[in-house]
Parts: sequence; C-alpha cells; structure tokens
Amino acid sequence: MTQAFKTIEWEGGRDGFVRMIEQTLLPTENVVLEVRTVPEMVDAIYRLAVRGAPAIGVAAGFGVMLGLRNEKDPEPDDLMGKLREIAATLAKARPTAVNLFWALDRMVHCGEQLHTAGTGGREMLEKLFAEALLIHSEDVESCLKMGRFGAELLEDGMTVLTHCNAGALATAGRGTALAPIYQAVEDGKKIAVYSDETRPLLQGARLTSWELMQAGIEVTLLVDGAAGSALKSGRIDAVIVGSDRIARNGDVCNKIGTYGVATLAKANNIPFYVVAPLSTFDATLASGDLIPIEERPAEEVTCAFGKRTAPENVAVYNPAFDVTPASLVTAIVTDAGIIVQPDTARVEEMLSVGGVSG
Amino acid sequence: MTQAFKTIEWEGGRDGFVRMIEQTLLPTENVVLEVRTVPEMVDAIYRLAVRGAPAIGVAAGFGVMLGLRNEKDPEPDDLMGKLREIAATLAKARPTAVNLFWALDRMVHCGEQLHTAGTGGREMLEKLFAEALLIHSEDVESCLKMGRFGAELLEDGMTVLTHCNAGALATAGRGTALAPIYQAVEDGKKIAVYSDETRPLLQGARLTSWELMQAGIEVTLLVDGAAGSALKSGRIDAVIVGSDRIARNGDVCNKIGTYGVATLAKANNIPFYVVAPLSTFDATLASGDLIPIEERPAEEVTCAFGKRTAPENVAVYNPAFDVTPASLVTAIVTDAGIIVQPDTARVEEMLSVGGVSG
Repeated sequence: MTQAFKTIEWEGGRDGFVRMIEQTLLPTENVVLEVRTVPEMVDAIYRLAVRGAPAIGVAAGFGVMLGLRNEKDPEPDDLMGKLREIAATLAKARPTAVNLFWALDRMVHCGEQLHTAGTGGREMLEKLFAEALLIHSEDVESCLKMGRFGAELLEDGMTVLTHCNAGALATAGRGTALAPIYQAVEDGKKIAVYSDETRPLLQGARLTSWELMQAGIEVTLLVDGAAGSALKSGRIDAVIVGSDRIARNGDVCNKIGTYGVATLAKANNIPFYVVAPLSTFDATLASGDLIPIEERPAEEVTCAFGKRTAPENVAVYNPAFDVTPASLVTAIVTDAGIIVQPDTARVEEMLSVGGVSG
Repeated sequence: MTQAFKTIEWEGGRDGFVRMIEQTLLPTENVVLEVRTVPEMVDAIYRLAVRGAPAIGVAAGFGVMLGLRNEKDPEPDDLMGKLREIAATLAKARPTAVNLFWALDRMVHCGEQLHTAGTGGREMLEKLFAEALLIHSEDVESCLKMGRFGAELLEDGMTVLTHCNAGALATAGRGTALAPIYQAVEDGKKIAVYSDETRPLLQGARLTSWELMQAGIEVTLLVDGAAGSALKSGRIDAVIVGSDRIARNGDVCNKIGTYGVATLAKANNIPFYVVAPLSTFDATLASGDLIPIEERPAEEVTCAFGKRTAPENVAVYNPAFDVTPASLVTAIVTDAGIIVQPDTARVEEMLSVGGVSG
C-alpha cells in the first residue's frame, strides 16, 4: 500500500523549495503549497498547513535549508551564525512538539561538527542539505517500522478508535498511529476505524477520514463526545493515538481530548496504544507535568469554519494538548520496539537500545 | 434574578398561539418564533428550535392546544378522538425525551377524566387549556425548587463544569442544571461556570454561554475534548448536568458526551450532579440500557456550521444521547429533594414522596 499523496517533500536540488499539502483546506480542496522562505515555513507550521509531530520535524529540517538555499560559498563562521539564527526563528513556530526542536538541534549539531572539523562553507551546505533529506527519509523508514511493530497488536476484524490525525498527513511516511493499521491491512487483516472529529480544528473529520478513505479503509466519523458511548458499546477493540511529546516516565502529551479517551478506554477495559518514534521522547523531562502546553486562539473555538458560534467576548479555555498519565497507557509502539506498560525504567531501556540519551 | 427572556410561552386566550425563542439562531440572532399549528410544533421540536426535556414537555402541552384552538363546541367523543390523534402526531417529534410523552399522556389523561365524568365539549376545552398552562407554570415552579435544593451543594467561590444546555433555555423557568447556579448567585455566592461547547449542535457554545452572559455570570467556553484537561487541572469543583430520562436505578440519559464527563469527574474525585424534575424519571425502565437513543442525521457532524468539514460519503456515528451509570452519579437533585448516591431503592423512595408511581 503506497500513499496516494506526499504530505511534505523537497523539490529540486539544494536551491530548491518545499512542497506540502495545504492541510487547512482538506478535505474539500487538495492544494499543494510551495514554501520558499523561512517566514513562510514558520507561518505554515503555525497555521497548521503542515502539522503532526514527525512532519513538523521534517518541515523544520527543510526550513533550515530554505534559509540557506541562496548561499553559494559562505564563510563557515558566517554560515554557523546564520544557521543558529534560522533555527531560533523556526523554534518559535509552535511550543509543544518536541520534534521541531529535535530536528533543529540536529541541523545545528550537524553544522557544528562540520565546522569543528574545519569543513569549508560549500561542503557544509551540501552536508546540511543531505542531513535535512536524511531526516525526511528516516521518518519514512521510522513509520514503516512502527507500522510493523504495531500491526502485531491488531487482529483480523478489529475496530480501532483514533483521535486527531497521526497518519500519513502527520508524517513524511505512512504515519504513526495509523501506520499499524496500514500495515495490518497490507498483511490481509480487515481493520475498521472510528475517527474522533477532534475539535477545535477537526483533524479527525478533515484529515484522518480523508486519508483512510483514500486508502479504501472503512472509517466512521464521530464527535469527540461520542467516543465514550462508542467505547462503552463494545464496538471498539483498541484505541490508537500518536503523540507530540513523551516524558521519561511514559506520560504522553497529545492532542486535546486524548486524556479523556484514555480514561474512557481504561474504564471500559479497552487497550490504549500510543505510537511514536523515539524522536518524540523528551528524556530531559521526568514527567508529563513539565511539558509546556500550547494555548491557541479563542477564535478556533468561537468562530469555527468562518461562522461565529458563540457569543461575542465569551472567555475561552483552548489548550491544544493534554497529558495522559503513563498509568493509562497499555503500550507505546516506537520505531525501535514496543514498550509495554511504560514507566521510567522501561522508557530509559528503550531509549538506550535506540541510541537516544537523556 | 429574573430571566431576561421567555423561552416558551402561550400568547392570548384559548385561541391564541405559542411564542418561543428560535434557538437554532442563537447566539448571533435572538428571534421569537410564532407557532400556530401542530405540524409547526412538531417541526420546531424536531429542528430543536425548542429543546431541553422540560421545555419539550411544555411545548407538547401547548402543541395539543394548537390542534384544538379552532374548536368551539365539539362533541366530547370527537374531541377525545382528535386529542389522541394530536398527541400521537406530537409524540413522533423526538424519541428520547420522556417529558414529551409525559406531557402528552397528562393531556390525554386529563381529557379522559373529564370525558368519563360527562363534561361537555366546551368545558373540556377550557380545562385542557388550563392543564397546558399548568404544565408551564409547574415547570417554572419546579425549576425554582431544583435551584433551591441544588444551591445547597454549591459554595461561594466554586467553579462548575456543565455540558450541553440545561438552563433557562431548556425549560419554561430558570433551568435544571443551571437553576442551582442562578439560585446560588442570587444568594450572594460567587460561582463561575465552564461550559462544554457540546458538539454536534453546540448547545453549550450557543445557548449556555449566551444565557449565563445575559445573567452576568462568569462563563468560560471549552471544546468537549478539553473537559478532561480542565477536570484534571484542579480548576473545577463540581460538574452539573441535566437529563432527558432517568431510569428507576438512577442511570441517567443525557446529551452525548455526558458519560465521558462523568467518567472523568469520577477519575478526578470531582462530584457529578444531575438536576432533573421528577417528570424526567421513567419508572417503567429498570435500567438505562432500556432507554432508546435517538440517532440524528450525519450532516450534523459532517456539515457543521454550513460548511462541509468531512469527506463526502463518510460513515457517521451520531447518537444524540448517552447513558451515565448511576455509579458515576454523586447525587440527583429533583424538585422534591436530593437523591444522594442514587440506586433503585432511593429513586423509588423519592418518586413515592413526589407522588409518582411506576
């Protein structure tokens, strides 16, 4: 099963540009956006034209290259200064997704290593470009691995509930949460999906439903408030979601509403799985309480879809994410294997296997 | 504190008509709808121009009178036939709210008693009209009683989360779930409210926020998925909701999403209160599993706010209600008193006190 669309890709050589699906227009319009400058990339990330933790990481790597695409033969010192400046600008686009910072750190670190080794400006540019492309190709590969590990948890005939979009549209590959579903279907299993619409921005309605229908997978849409009813009714066999950041103790930060779904899954004895690459783990954070939560504008809630649906001047509480305690997580599927009943020891063990240090 | 608006009222004498707020246009337009025929009333109930279990009961009583408003001096037998026919038509408007059937049964029963007693057609009409007005005034009174009982549960400085709209807009009076809040504020307590927007029809965003702002009560709007985060954060002291039908064992049927809020309240040790008049209890049902759940059109989910937000032809699961098990309910506040930790024995005791038989 190959995806019928490319969520984000680099077009051309080192002086090329980025092409991405303009996700704010889905599902009614499938428009490809061309991004050529750093401010345009910051805007695309902030507006959620590109979203999903892994895809944001890829966008960040590409964003660095957009800032350097017109450089020909820079002084290595100047290049490093510019690289750090671009990374600082891109880092401000969104505060919660650790993959953004992870990818920017990786680009800066790559530059530093080359600089320390006395590499010339032109060669540094080539190698940084290769690093950005590597972040992209590693993400594609990582999705395939998560899909293979996660598919082992899915049996023929299962119905899975998911929240938000952690599919192909959230990555450069076939997704995190949806990767095991694509893999299981490829393996000949019949899997049906219930997709929470995921207010306020309706990623489930607009994106998850769309990409599953593109792939011919049976999908049923429901409002977020109906997830409890669906889980209690016996029609759901497992919940699978992605994550924007995972603390060292296994606490999972993900789209607002995830904690509610996890609590309802637990109350109904339904397994709750999180699928995320090791790059989503933030080993510097001992627990999920330390994860900063992005608060987004009130208008996302009050003026949905161009129409005002709440009184003028009403106060709004609009956190973009919540934290699900590790105690509610049955397993975390990573690109290096599965962490069953995650806790600090088990997470640290997987990170050391995967070569990630705290 | 008197309400600044009339949700539903009868205008004029026995040949008069019904005036109601057209709730589908709130909060951007405050339009009063005039309803003069039975089909218009069925349509108003089905479209949710009037909604909320107690208000639907009042609308049903008035609806019967709309069908009889042009009668002058009917034969009692013909009048009874017509009365039953009108009641059967109105009963089809919505399947879940027991107050609809309760009010129609009450009107038919009133007619039967008069008929059996040999009352003439003209007098029957007058007495039926008085009965419909009595349903209205009893609802106003019942809201006041629930408000007084429920206000005892609220302390100065509390913040309360509510779901959907069980306020003045859901009754002829000051509401069910919101009545204790209006009463507590009237008693000089400071109460703040968090209002779930309540997809798909956004009664929380459109109606609850609006009526609380009209009354000068501090209200914060949030998407349904953010309720878990709010409950976990410590900013909520109690949850208060209404109900569309309560089974004899205390299981509570209410707007879709209520079960999720109740589960999250329990998980965070926050009291979960239901406020409903005794007319909401259906003593014929041993448990909530027996309550029929209305499934509403897919378009409520896929074409929210006049704009398509999901792919064409996507399957949709759109139950209008869910059932919260009595085990998650801290107390049910009725117009006859409070049922703490409801179960069959305690519900039956309250119903017998209130003069309602199974």
